[in-house]
Amino acid sequence: MEEKRFSRPLSLRDVKITDDFWKQEMELVREEIIPYQWKALNDEVEGAEPSFCMRNFKVAGKQNKERREQGEAFEEPAYTFRGFQALPEDMEHLEDKFYGFVFQDSDFYKWIESVGYSLVQHPDAELERIADEAIDIVCDAQQEDGYLDTYYIINGKDKIFSNLRDHHELYCFGHLAEGAVAYYQATGKEKLLVAAKRYADYIICHFGEEEGKCKGYPGHEIAEMALVRLYEITGEEKYKELSYFFVNERGKKPYYFDREHPEEIPKGQEESLRYEYHQAHLPVREQEEAVGHAVRAVYLYSGMADLARLYGDEALYRTCERLWDSIVKEKMYITGGIGGTHIGEAFSFPYDLPNDTAYAETCASIGLAFFARRMLQMRADAKYADVLELALYNGILSGMALDGKSFFYVNPLEVLPEACHRDERKFHVKPVRQKWFGCACCPPNLARLLSSVGMYAYTESEDTLYVHLYVGGRIKKEIAGETAEIIIESGYPWQGNVSVRVGGTKKPFTIAFRIPSWCDDYRIDGVENARTEKRDGYLYVTKVWEEDVLRLDFPMEIRRMESHALVRENIGKVALMRGPVVYCMEEADNGRNLHLLSILESAEAETEEREIAGVQVKGIKINGFRQQIRGGKNEPLYHTMNHADREAVQLHFIPYYTWANRGENEMQVWTRLEKG
Amino acid sequence: MEEKRFSRPLSLRDVKITDDFWKQEMELVREEIIPYQWKALNDEVEGAEPSFCMRNFKVAGKQNKERREQGEAFEEPAYTFRGFQALPEDMEHLEDKFYGFVFQDSDFYKWIESVGYSLVQHPDAELERIADEAIDIVCDAQQEDGYLDTYYIINGKDKIFSNLRDHHELYCFGHLAEGAVAYYQATGKEKLLVAAKRYADYIICHFGEEEGKCKGYPGHEIAEMALVRLYEITGEEKYKELSYFFVNERGKKPYYFDREHPEEIPKGQEESLRYEYHQAHLPVREQEEAVGHAVRAVYLYSGMADLARLYGDEALYRTCERLWDSIVKEKMYITGGIGGTHIGEAFSFPYDLPNDTAYAETCASIGLAFFARRMLQMRADAKYADVLELALYNGILSGMALDGKSFFYVNPLEVLPEACHRDERKFHVKPVRQKWFGCACCPPNLARLLSSVGMYAYTESEDTLYVHLYVGGRIKKEIAGETAEIIIESGYPWQGNVSVRVGGTKKPFTIAFRIPSWCDDYRIDGVENARTEKRDGYLYVTKVWEEDVLRLDFPMEIRRMESHALVRENIGKVALMRGPVVYCMEEADNGRNLHLLSILESAEAETEEREIAGVQVKGIKINGFRQQIRGGKNEPLYHTMNHADREAVQLHFIPYYTWANRGENEMQVWTRLEKG
Repeated sequence: MEEKRFSRPLSLRDVKITDDFWKQEMELVREEIIPYQWKALNDEVEGAEPSFCMRNFKVAGKQNKERREQGEAFEEPAYTFRGFQALPEDMEHLEDKFYGFVFQDSDFYKWIESVGYSLVQHPDAELERIADEAIDIVCDAQQEDGYLDTYYIINGKDKIFSNLRDHHELYCFGHLAEGAVAYYQATGKEKLLVAAKRYADYIICHFGEEEGKCKGYPGHEIAEMALVRLYEITGEEKYKELSYFFVNERGKKPYYFDREHPEEIPKGQEESLRYEYHQAHLPVREQEEAVGHAVRAVYLYSGMADLARLYGDEALYRTCERLWDSIVKEKMYITGGIGGTHIGEAFSFPYDLPNDTAYAETCASIGLAFFARRMLQMRADAKYADVLELALYNGILSGMALDGKSFFYVNPLEVLPEACHRDERKFHVKPVRQKWFGCACCPPNLARLLSSVGMYAYTESEDTLYVHLYVGGRIKKEIAGETAEIIIESGYPWQGNVSVRVGGTKKPFTIAFRIPSWCDDYRIDGVENARTEKRDGYLYVTKVWEEDVLRLDFPMEIRRMESHALVRENIGKVALMRGPVVYCMEEADNGRNLHLLSILESAEAETEEREIAGVQVKGIKINGFRQQIRGGKNEPLYHTMNHADREAVQLHFIPYYTWANRGENEMQVWTRLEKG
Repeated sequence: MEEKRFSRPLSLRDVKITDDFWKQEMELVREEIIPYQWKALNDEVEGAEPSFCMRNFKVAGKQNKERREQGEAFEEPAYTFRGFQALPEDMEHLEDKFYGFVFQDSDFYKWIESVGYSLVQHPDAELERIADEAIDIVCDAQQEDGYLDTYYIINGKDKIFSNLRDHHELYCFGHLAEGAVAYYQATGKEKLLVAAKRYADYIICHFGEEEGKCKGYPGHEIAEMALVRLYEITGEEKYKELSYFFVNERGKKPYYFDREHPEEIPKGQEESLRYEYHQAHLPVREQEEAVGHAVRAVYLYSGMADLARLYGDEALYRTCERLWDSIVKEKMYITGGIGGTHIGEAFSFPYDLPNDTAYAETCASIGLAFFARRMLQMRADAKYADVLELALYNGILSGMALDGKSFFYVNPLEVLPEACHRDERKFHVKPVRQKWFGCACCPPNLARLLSSVGMYAYTESEDTLYVHLYVGGRIKKEIAGETAEIIIESGYPWQGNVSVRVGGTKKPFTIAFRIPSWCDDYRIDGVENARTEKRDGYLYVTKVWEEDVLRLDFPMEIRRMESHALVRENIGKVALMRGPVVYCMEEADNGRNLHLLSILESAEAETEEREIAGVQVKGIKINGFRQQIRGGKNEPLYHTMNHADREAVQLHFIPYYTWANRGENEMQVWTRLEKG
């Protein structure tokens, strides 16, 4: 780790996204998700399970008001257990109680974060007014002492922080901090940021190394990276230190979660590796393999990467590298999906990447993007940006329908709808996207990521602008008191040609362009008078930029990808990619029983223009075969082999992220390869 | 259904098995399983969970004695719920209570059935003495009124037959009847048969069409076929009628099991297809697809086939045919295993036959053999005998180690031990056989099937002996008052040549020889002076037999089998068979990562002599390839395809039933086929 190469995302207001592709996604967030989610937070979506989110804040605020008015006469509620999800007995007559999941507060925090990003790209006074009023409601719920979690405020604060493993208090705090920072950066308004700081300060009084303080850490990680954001915007060391404390305590023995739940300690197994699900099975620096709940894992690793950078902690950095490799070399789908099993929504063992029972939660790929960006901040190496790009254009985008109105939690690589309906082992795999979820993590997570894509595409250090992704945009960069403007235009992900216009300063600086790993033969024009250097997959171009125009070209060939030979599922099969885009076949284009289809080894693939649910994309066509089903239903199950009963057919592939936009049907990413 | 073609198994004492192959298996039952199981029934196996089986009978017997002695002063126990499995609080101080599973009584009944068969083949005065004493203990437990189920006798008879869905009373009765008939047939001793009849009579008083009687039926089927056996040995119609009643009630609406468990009826779904697990989702004659718990299903279908024969019930017969086809054409592994999913130990949807997560319980294949034999009794069609043979030599035999000391419940077709240890989705798949199970159904079921193989190999009608399987044996057949002797010798399953010597009678009769479906080109010598006719895969040879010798030859070629194209798991793959034997590869012979291996399409397979754990078998060798793993751990997970990085290797296959006899290792039945 050489500190001088550290970079940071650009300030939100210094990036304006102009990219055709991403602008379309961001507009879906603005026009579909944000308004829909606001209705959901307020229980105004007809036919949907109520969220109770804003209602809980109001009930807590009312309680606060009563406390203030009644003074000493006010009777604090004593804790009554209400389980992980509290539902009203009678929907028609709601009481002043907490309803919904223990983590329901976080729905608002995710929403306000998206709103912040969206307002930067698309100012909207009415939306900002709604947001400000909502912030007032939330802040009214905050206690005098700074505590802010409606589950415990309403149910009784005597039990706060007593079930860190399951009750998501620190998770909700993390989302509050992320949302507050984003809204402050976008609008300059401090109210929610102050609330987040006050709650953080309350937490600091409760947790820490000092004697008498609680030695716990979050059951569901996110506070780790959120506290770093709070530190980076406020400059207050204590927030960074609390994050470091959480990370350092995790996995120490005896397990903190065992101290919380002594009744659950299995007899005779005190020294075993429990809590893999929570990444709390070992002290973090001893962890070698990415395990457990995949979203929690990558949220933790993202925080660890932040801290490794801030503390120059080599051991933590090496751990992040190891865990990165564990994911990327052994546990990641070709789509950038992670989580091979639905049991615990978790990583499976190395190379176990089943296509049809995959979990590959949208949120997990989003978390992988968080982790990648933070690794890039420490060292610009194209290996991180390659994965970031892969996840963004595939496993993340597939989480949302092309109209922004329905969502996948689970992103399988092979789907037979009959199996999803009839085989309990695949009930978690949905063949069509769902409208919204009671436990709504993926849609708002998508909203906040897609509307902040500029924070992933570019980072900067004092004298360098890093272009990790070729997302079109207008960027302002401070160079020793002057402001350079960089305008990037690209036809990504369909065309590999990029133009970069730079000007506005007399000071020399560097632009580092990532060379995608999928491109063997790139070209760059317009750097004749510059100093160039290639390092770790980046081309560093340094000069005094005087209204320069650079042209980069990354030819997008159709690639046949194969897996590491230890991925049992994919042996003898290939997947098609072009540029950063992974392709798949759908029944809508290729008929039923996709497993009968194979690609002819000697065939040449070609692109074709396609329209999927009104959206123009590049498809791929290639010759192959369809194995015949002889005799239909009456064919015996097993018979002596006879030869090559197959028909020549043309196969049609579409971008993976566009699947399931034409009704319920089969889909498959990996296809057998056959000789002619 | 033409009644005149019905056949029945030969009387136990008219068949002496002399077959090398099966005698070895029967000796394992006699020398290993029966003595071990007797110890298990008496809680004398060190280190094993106690069964409490004989203990429960003794406790019930003691209670009976006290009742008799105390007369009216005796206080009947009132029912106290003890759950599905009752374990003592203190193993050192057992009370006079019921312990173990609700179905624990059936362990003894399965044991006594095996003992019966074994005594016929191998008389053993000491074993018979032990058995007689055990029968005394069991009969002492029977109530005055005939009731005999220790769970309810000890816990309180006020709740008998109140939970037919889950409590296995009628299942235990079924095993009692099966065991009693077998022991009576073997020894001529009536005591247990009388007990079974008394209990059956008690049940008849409780269940039936008459008003006021219970309209329930067994949650776990077996009584249906057991009652038929009781009828066939006693000639008492009422037993047949009770069986018919059970079968006819099953699946009627409103569901009987709902009446038992009204609190579990899902709201608004009263008319849905519940109880597929119990095959009680529809009246049996409306069932089109084999569904639910696979063992229960084939036990039911076996009983239905018996009743279709006895009642000449065409609709029931057609149902049996449909369900047979549903299994054999859509839901059976090539090994004769059934049950594609561990969830509910059940059939999955058509053509869903995953190799690595298969359930394919040993007992389910045994039940399939029951069903096949009963279908054969109605109509000798080789299609049934082919499946019977397949199940026997593969999916059933694989349930037992070659030394008879350990057992599989689950018989997968592909095993990666790491997955069994680390992937919860495969925890039901064991890479090595287990010693014995608390819930011990498979080992005793194996014992009773293997020691009665003669009941499956041959059946008879008045003038015909059917040879379904070429199991060597000496058979006595009555022909119009005279006794013919038929001696069959074969080298099965390794050699297809069979000799048949017949003599001892002046009356003409027919021997029907099955022509296995796997044999395209059989020969028969010695039938020059006979009338022969081929029908439904059987060759009917009729003559006056005068010390004749017939020679049949079924050449055993190595066959490459492929699946129906809709079996997604096996597309592009083949399995090897020779005669009735399915082959597999093991890591012990072929190294790790069996998925990397493929068979060369143009290669010739050859047999090779092999010794597996001391047993001589025929193996198969064939040329193929091993795909190379490039760069090992550091190879990227996905990369652009490069060509044919593979090594030519010789592959070694062993009979499927012999796998997992050389320690924990990988195994695979279906192998990719590749061009050179």
